[in-house]
Amino acid sequence: MTLVPRGLKIGVFDSGFGGLTVLRELLKLLPGAESIYLGDTARLPYGSKSRETISRYAVSSAKFLEEQGADLMVIACNTATALALEDIQASLPIPVIGVIEPGAEAARAVSKDGDVLVLATAATVQSGAYTKALAAVGLKAYEKACPLLVPLVEEGWTEHPVTDEVIRIYLDEALSAAPETKTLLLGCTHYPLIEAAMRRVLEGVGRPLMIVDSAKATAAATARLVAEIFPNVTVIEGPGRSFFATDSVAKFRKLGADFLGQPVDEVRLVDLGG
Amino acid sequence: MTLVPRGLKIGVFDSGFGGLTVLRELLKLLPGAESIYLGDTARLPYGSKSRETISRYAVSSAKFLEEQGADLMVIACNTATALALEDIQASLPIPVIGVIEPGAEAARAVSKDGDVLVLATAATVQSGAYTKALAAVGLKAYEKACPLLVPLVEEGWTEHPVTDEVIRIYLDEALSAAPETKTLLLGCTHYPLIEAAMRRVLEGVGRPLMIVDSAKATAAATARLVAEIFPNVTVIEGPGRSFFATDSVAKFRKLGADFLGQPVDEVRLVDLGG
Repeated sequence: MTLVPRGLKIGVFDSGFGGLTVLRELLKLLPGAESIYLGDTARLPYGSKSRETISRYAVSSAKFLEEQGADLMVIACNTATALALEDIQASLPIPVIGVIEPGAEAARAVSKDGDVLVLATAATVQSGAYTKALAAVGLKAYEKACPLLVPLVEEGWTEHPVTDEVIRIYLDEALSAAPETKTLLLGCTHYPLIEAAMRRVLEGVGRPLMIVDSAKATAAATARLVAEIFPNVTVIEGPGRSFFATDSVAKFRKLGADFLGQPVDEVRLVDLGG
Repeated sequence: MTLVPRGLKIGVFDSGFGGLTVLRELLKLLPGAESIYLGDTARLPYGSKSRETISRYAVSSAKFLEEQGADLMVIACNTATALALEDIQASLPIPVIGVIEPGAEAARAVSKDGDVLVLATAATVQSGAYTKALAAVGLKAYEKACPLLVPLVEEGWTEHPVTDEVIRIYLDEALSAAPETKTLLLGCTHYPLIEAAMRRVLEGVGRPLMIVDSAKATAAATARLVAEIFPNVTVIEGPGRSFFATDSVAKFRKLGADFLGQPVDEVRLVDLGG
C-alpha cells in the first residue's frame, strides 16, 4: 500500500463517466488518497465539439474542483487534455496532469517498431495531440477517430456483436493505414470497457497488437507525481470519495459503477451554468 | 405557393442538426417565409440528459431566437418538446409549436388499429410525452428508446449495414412488444435521414409498417398556424434564412446541408453561456 499525506485531495475531472476508469486505477495505487470527481455530464460529450467550447467547459470544471479543495488535478479525459490542458494549467494554481503524455510514455515502453495506432474521439484526433506527444518520445502515431465507440459503451453494448463489427470496421481502416504497427493506444477513457472486444477483433483479423491503456498509465503517473511533490507521506484510514455531476445524479450512480468497478454511493449535482 | 406576411420570421430551434429536417419541409410549404434557425450544438445531445438540464438549455435557446425577432417558434426537437414545451411557452410572448402533438395527429390519420410504435431518444421515451399525446387522440403508444441512432446518423452511416443491424435489433425488441401495430412514428428529427433503412428493415422482417414522420407533420401544422394567426398574407421575394450554432460553425455548415437538403451558406456562432 502506497502512503499518502494526510488530507491530500486529488481532483479527477472528465466530461462524463470515462474518467472513472482512471480513478479506478488510481484507487488501486493510492488507496489512502481522498478523491473528488466531477463528471460534466450536462455538457458531454466533448469529443464532437470545438476547441473553444471544450476549453471553456474544461476550465470551468477544473476550477470547480480546485475550489472544492483539490491539491492536484487529473484531467481524466483525452479530449479535454488534447484541447485544453494548457488552458487548465494556466488557470489553476495547483499541479495539473493529463492523460496524453502518460499514454505516450507507456506506448514508448512497449512499442518495438516505433509506430503506434491511436484510437480516440474526433476532437482528440483533430487536435493532433497524440501525434505531437508520441513524436516527443520518438514514436510515429497513426490516429483514427472512432465516434461510435463512446455511444456504444454508454448503451451498455460492451459485449455485443454490433460493437465488435464497428470496432472491426474502424480497425480495418486504421490497420491498413498502419500495416506494420504492433501497438494500439486507447486514447479515450471509455475504451477500457471494450478492451476485451478490441482484443477479440484484433485476434480475429490476425493482428494481435499490444494494447496500451492511457487510464492505467495516467494513474501510475499521478502516483509518481504525488510521491514527488508530497514526499512526506502518511496513511489515512477510511478516505473520502466525493462525486459531482452537472446532470442527473441517478444516471451517474447507475452508469458510474460500471466504469469505477464499485458502487458509486452519493453523487451531488452541481450547476456550472450553461 | 403559400403566401406569408411581409416580415414574418419563423424561429426554428433544435439541439443540433435534426431540426433542419423540419425546416426543410417548412421551406417547401412556406417558401416565402423568413426563417431563423438555432442549433444548440455546444450542449447537444439533449436526448441523454435530465428534464431540468434540457429545460434550462431549451428555454435559453428559444429566448435567443425570440430576441432575434422570431414571430413564432417551432421547437423542432422531440426531446426539447417532450421535456420543455410548457416551460418554453411560459417563457416566451410568441406562439410556440412543438413536434409531438403534430406527430400524434399525423399518426391518428393513418393508424387503423389504434396502436403506434414510437422510436425516440431515451429522454423523450422516459418523459412519456408521446404516450400522453397519442392517448389524447385515442391511440395506444409503444415507445422504444434508440440511443445509437443519432450517433449513427451523425457518423454519416445512413446507408450502412451496421445501421440496418442496429435498427433491426431495436425493432425486433419493439415489434415483439407491439405485435399488432401497423404504424411507426419517427419521434426524433434525426430519423428521417434513415427512413429508407427503416423501411428496408421492416420489409425484411415482414412487417411493412406505415411510417409517420413528425418533421413533415410539424411543418404542415406550422403552415396551418401561420395561415390562422397571420391571415392577411403577402409574398416576399428572396426571403432570408439565418443560421446560428453554439459550437463549430464549420461543422454546422458541413453536416447541416445533409439535413436541410441544400447548402447552408452562413452560420453565426452564438454563446449562450455554459
